[in-house]
Amino acid sequence: MIRKICIVITARASYCRIKAALNEIRKHPALELQLVVAASALLEKYGCILDSLEKDGFCITAKIFNMLDADNNTAAAKTTGLGTIELASLFENIKPDVVISIGDRFETLSTAIAASCMNITLVHVQGGEVTGNIDQKVRHAVTELADVHFVATAKAQNRLVQIGKNPEYVFNTGCPSIDLALQAKNITQYCESETCENKKPDAGEKYLVVMQHSVTTELQYTRKQIRETLNAVKILNIPTYWFYPNADPGSPEITKGIREFEEKCHDHLIRFVKNFEPLQFLQLIRNSSCLIGNSSTGIREASYLGIPVVNIGTRQAGRERGSNVTDTDYDCEKIVQSVNNQLLHRRYSSETIYGNGHAGKKIAELLATIPLIADRKTDY
Amino acid sequence: MIRKICIVITARASYCRIKAALNEIRKHPALELQLVVAASALLEKYGCILDSLEKDGFCITAKIFNMLDADNNTAAAKTTGLGTIELASLFENIKPDVVISIGDRFETLSTAIAASCMNITLVHVQGGEVTGNIDQKVRHAVTELADVHFVATAKAQNRLVQIGKNPEYVFNTGCPSIDLALQAKNITQYCESETCENKKPDAGEKYLVVMQHSVTTELQYTRKQIRETLNAVKILNIPTYWFYPNADPGSPEITKGIREFEEKCHDHLIRFVKNFEPLQFLQLIRNSSCLIGNSSTGIREASYLGIPVVNIGTRQAGRERGSNVTDTDYDCEKIVQSVNNQLLHRRYSSETIYGNGHAGKKIAELLATIPLIADRKTDY
Amino acid sequence: MIRKICIVITARASYCRIKAALNEIRKHPALELQLVVAASALLEKYGCILDSLEKDGFCITAKIFNMLDADNNTAAAKTTGLGTIELASLFENIKPDVVISIGDRFETLSTAIAASCMNITLVHVQGGEVTGNIDQKVRHAVTELADVHFVATAKAQNRLVQIGKNPEYVFNTGCPSIDLALQAKNITQYCESETCENKKPDAGEKYLVVMQHSVTTELQYTRKQIRETLNAVKILNIPTYWFYPNADPGSPEITKGIREFEEKCHDHLIRFVKNFEPLQFLQLIRNSSCLIGNSSTGIREASYLGIPVVNIGTRQAGRERGSNVTDTDYDCEKIVQSVNNQLLHRRYSSETIYGNGHAGKKIAELLATIPLIADRKTDY
Amino acid sequence: MIRKICIVITARASYCRIKAALNEIRKHPALELQLVVAASALLEKYGCILDSLEKDGFCITAKIFNMLDADNNTAAAKTTGLGTIELASLFENIKPDVVISIGDRFETLSTAIAASCMNITLVHVQGGEVTGNIDQKVRHAVTELADVHFVATAKAQNRLVQIGKNPEYVFNTGCPSIDLALQAKNITQYCESETCENKKPDAGEKYLVVMQHSVTTELQYTRKQIRETLNAVKILNIPTYWFYPNADPGSPEITKGIREFEEKCHDHLIRFVKNFEPLQFLQLIRNSSCLIGNSSTGIREASYLGIPVVNIGTRQAGRERGSNVTDTDYDCEKIVQSVNNQLLHRRYSSETIYGNGHAGKKIAELLATIPLIADRKTDY
Repeated sequence: MIRKICIVITARASYCRIKAALNEIRKHPALELQLVVAASALLEKYGCILDSLEKDGFCITAKIFNMLDADNNTAAAKTTGLGTIELASLFENIKPDVVISIGDRFETLSTAIAASCMNITLVHVQGGEVTGNIDQKVRHAVTELADVHFVATAKAQNRLVQIGKNPEYVFNTGCPSIDLALQAKNITQYCESETCENKKPDAGEKYLVVMQHSVTTELQYTRKQIRETLNAVKILNIPTYWFYPNADPGSPEITKGIREFEEKCHDHLIRFVKNFEPLQFLQLIRNSSCLIGNSSTGIREASYLGIPVVNIGTRQAGRERGSNVTDTDYDCEKIVQSVNNQLLHRRYSSETIYGNGHAGKKIAELLATIPLIADRKTDY
Repeated sequence: MIRKICIVITARASYCRIKAALNEIRKHPALELQLVVAASALLEKYGCILDSLEKDGFCITAKIFNMLDADNNTAAAKTTGLGTIELASLFENIKPDVVISIGDRFETLSTAIAASCMNITLVHVQGGEVTGNIDQKVRHAVTELADVHFVATAKAQNRLVQIGKNPEYVFNTGCPSIDLALQAKNITQYCESETCENKKPDAGEKYLVVMQHSVTTELQYTRKQIRETLNAVKILNIPTYWFYPNADPGSPEITKGIREFEEKCHDHLIRFVKNFEPLQFLQLIRNSSCLIGNSSTGIREASYLGIPVVNIGTRQAGRERGSNVTDTDYDCEKIVQSVNNQLLHRRYSSETIYGNGHAGKKIAELLATIPLIADRKTDY
Repeated sequence: MIRKICIVITARASYCRIKAALNEIRKHPALELQLVVAASALLEKYGCILDSLEKDGFCITAKIFNMLDADNNTAAAKTTGLGTIELASLFENIKPDVVISIGDRFETLSTAIAASCMNITLVHVQGGEVTGNIDQKVRHAVTELADVHFVATAKAQNRLVQIGKNPEYVFNTGCPSIDLALQAKNITQYCESETCENKKPDAGEKYLVVMQHSVTTELQYTRKQIRETLNAVKILNIPTYWFYPNADPGSPEITKGIREFEEKCHDHLIRFVKNFEPLQFLQLIRNSSCLIGNSSTGIREASYLGIPVVNIGTRQAGRERGSNVTDTDYDCEKIVQSVNNQLLHRRYSSETIYGNGHAGKKIAELLATIPLIADRKTDY
Repeated sequence: MIRKICIVITARASYCRIKAALNEIRKHPALELQLVVAASALLEKYGCILDSLEKDGFCITAKIFNMLDADNNTAAAKTTGLGTIELASLFENIKPDVVISIGDRFETLSTAIAASCMNITLVHVQGGEVTGNIDQKVRHAVTELADVHFVATAKAQNRLVQIGKNPEYVFNTGCPSIDLALQAKNITQYCESETCENKKPDAGEKYLVVMQHSVTTELQYTRKQIRETLNAVKILNIPTYWFYPNADPGSPEITKGIREFEEKCHDHLIRFVKNFEPLQFLQLIRNSSCLIGNSSTGIREASYLGIPVVNIGTRQAGRERGSNVTDTDYDCEKIVQSVNNQLLHRRYSSETIYGNGHAGKKIAELLATIPLIADRKTDY
């Protein structure tokens, strides 16, 4: 019998991370993919993924607009509540056999709660990692609600077993984002794409990439944090691709900081972008001289690609990392110095902490074979 | 500065369990109690607690009707989502310093998510225990979202530290339900009460108490499970106080089973009840000959009171228990036999696994002194 | 191009009323039926329609559980709000060309608001009538949100034109419930049905039918109102089919009144029922000696079938009626007398105030041809 | 007994319109004001009113964040649904005697539905007017749900009586916005204000004001509509205060049009603003040479102030207007010509179609004396 696998994508970043698995699930003869797009993944200002999905040939089962419009944590909580309501209704109607919750964004709690309350087998991808921010709490809470765990590292696997998860249901598949990174590495020619083409760096061009998100437990410092990095990059005076932040509380504050900067400085070399396709995005990272900010991309994909990273602040605190990462504070001077050091070092050798590029296949295969809740009643 | 302590009560059972702490919080000069009543705690059919609160002299900050009307897990998920939305709005307006989430009912996830998303210090009472059912997942997920833990047993404390919780924020306060049990034990005279009076057993009367809830992961067996126990109690032919079930999915199925039974059998000795006051409830338990079913009352309060318990099925699987508990299956014959054995054994000696009756005071004192999130920023 | 016609059914009564139109829409080559079942139409205690739909061969596009569980007007308001949210999401995903809102129950506001906010052509069936209760407000508000009106009487048509509705979009189709009544009249043999069979009256049996709902603007009198009628019917001492009430605020109060009655009186001739199939229901009415209560069935279908009706209270105040209706108060004595008078009068001659039995066809034909909002932009 | 009067403000424009009444309600000894701020009135990008409320000395009873973040009509419907849920909970807890719904924005439906479902006396301010857009439907639907009507013009009063509203409950109070306009007229000195000061025009400066909102039934033309007006104003080449649009679907599209314009044109004389205080706003209008766009301010306040207005498109179609208004299309050339004609004409004489400046007092007095639903039960 074909298993219906429902994946809820709530952000562009999650799409990039899971895409390799989606491809394999779609191709698998025993699986049917139910793709749900929700929250910021539907909003233009956060890099709506609908065009990318269409281009990549994915059909959408449902769209759920559940983001509240307000830059505060209250809105984040309500977005989560609304998502829970709507996903419960949707699951009732599309009857998935398995629901997949990705990573640690607060909206993924909606997916996890709806599925677990409804006794639908819940798979959590990327559990067991350690970081700062509300992400940490969310990730661990989703782990507790989940029935099966597809983790990205050996340490994460150990951690889940240590806290009492049944080892039979904890699988180290690696992170599917590394599958894409492998692809990006092997393509010598730059992928042309309608949406990204005009943002493409010239061949051989030297440039930086910045990805800096708000830290929801430090919202009062958001504006200061973004200013320090903006000033550092201005001083570095190297062409830079700067990604708009994810849809977290604090994100509009970052956008305001950027607008303010743009109004004051007209002679900078920064290009603010948001809509890169997953593969082009990784090619952009792969060909960059240094990645700056607090995104997990610096920790995961960049370690595989060997890209020098300057990681700022507490957002990734505790996450396993390769030798390519230098940590620093939200401090203009320190950032400049760290980047300069990384530029001198140049490329690092590839590390496979987060996988070797075959996560998608493993995930699809497991989804077709793991025992569902219905099949393992005695465990409960 | 006075700290505002917000407690959300979603079921009569939770009120019984936390009442001793509420009393101490109310009396504490450094604390202000914000009492929110929600979900089944507002519904007459599940034993609405508004009258009890008034009688006990508590003021209510807000009432939130968020129970969906449908006997399925989909409704349970939506109830949780709606609760999250409404509690977020409420917290935004009443600005608590601390939010307390009690136990492991699915609706407590709403409280936990709203508070944690909003960076409000979240205290979880009764974490770290092990059981079956969805309760297990909910309890552990709330633990992961919480900042401070007031556990009821030494083992629970160890377990939370083992899975990585900071020991400085894990306190073994004991369970405040034992405070009430202590009180019930010391009162020789039966408490008269307007609402319970007419249900009072006669002095010296020998009777059983039954509390059997649905198991949300075994919903398809609910009707069978209730039938077995009903038949067993009929065969035992002893006066019995039988409590209507909590507001879980499956609960209407139990109620239907009871109605069916009542239509068929007119010569039984069962009294179906729901609205006992917390203290009268514990007196009823204390004077009973045996407690039957799958309620945690059999595990917690009954072990302190030394009452023989026949615990049925998986719902309490794994929970620490005293020597007063005999486990059995949903099987009429086995239940009859187990009860008869317990009746022969009579009263057990008191055990203090779940506390010694001073939890309320400890909890209030801790609430006045624990560092709030705002004060321990560096942890994050 | 095939037009997608979405109908949201929120109560068993609405299903009976619209079924004839559903049949015609389904058969029409230019129309595709999108059937949504929501609110009380999904709940067993109010006569869940899922089995009936299956038996009648209808496919369901989506189920939406949106009833709040609380017997008060607050819950009714929240049910409406939740319905609006969920229907908006659903319409976004199933993209209907036309949405149909039926009658005047408060939940129909959800349908009307979602469709009108989203610029989807909204058809209101049964507007322009006058009654008491919140129904009156709801009906007129939906009329104001609707683009096209299928009314049941000539007076209703005039009224809508008088208050400014464009006559081109106000159609007197008659009420589709009369189509079923016509069918019920023409069938001499009683329809057997699995679900109703055992409730079937014997051939030639003389019996009454009672349908009494709560009046949401007179909730404080609900219990008294039901008591008066129960006593009257007890005094009449004739076999009686008594239908459980609709899912309005006050409905549980009525159910309680009935339970109380049943506990006290064991020698009555009343049969309490809820799950009649639409056609059997009308056959039951058609063969009854008198219909008692405050249901619009007494006003609409009964006038066509010529059945004597004793209409109680303000709920139908102002609604056009035939000579078969006698009005009275919630007063035991007056009800008994009115019923006795009606029993002496016996059958009335058929009146076609609410249509002549061909509404379904007219409605389907109009749905295929009326200009959609998109086609008549200039009106706005 | 003091009556609790609850007013829900969902947009800055509504605050400007109702402020004079708020002042009088607050001062009235028999009334207690319950002020609820919701939806776009809480969002910085739409001109958050919290600072203004504080400055004006109003206490807030509750804040409700219910705006969905998505630029489409689906989000508008969901915002309305969420508002209904949250307002119902709030009304349950703060127990207002009267709820006031202002005007015709879609979110006001939430207020109206919650209050009417809950049998709370609902007063509608500004009913009975005629316009284009979804506003028309919303206004009339709220009228149908309301119990008492405070209209702004004699024609509106007649219209409500004609469609069947009880004349005893339809009062022509005039529009409270005219009270403020009267005040603005009488103040010779320009009000200084912290928030507006730096935007203040110089004394004697000649300037235009533009207020152009999206038309929710013509969303596909929004970008074109804004472009035409931007080009017209650029050609006119006169200093201009241009207000950001209300929070309607289509509003982000307008904002984008403005950003696009700003990127291309650096030599224009437009100042884009959003946060004017109610009184300063009216002074700005009063001293302007011409008001351009599709705001009702051009129809209401401007007619009293005698300001020349160029009204564009269908948004105000059908609304009663003074001789100061010239209508035109979204056509750059026609707009330029209409504005030039109005500039030649200069100031018009004051008209009192929408009141004479004493609405606030009348409204407060009526609120203290009108019979509540509870007092006029017999009407139902």
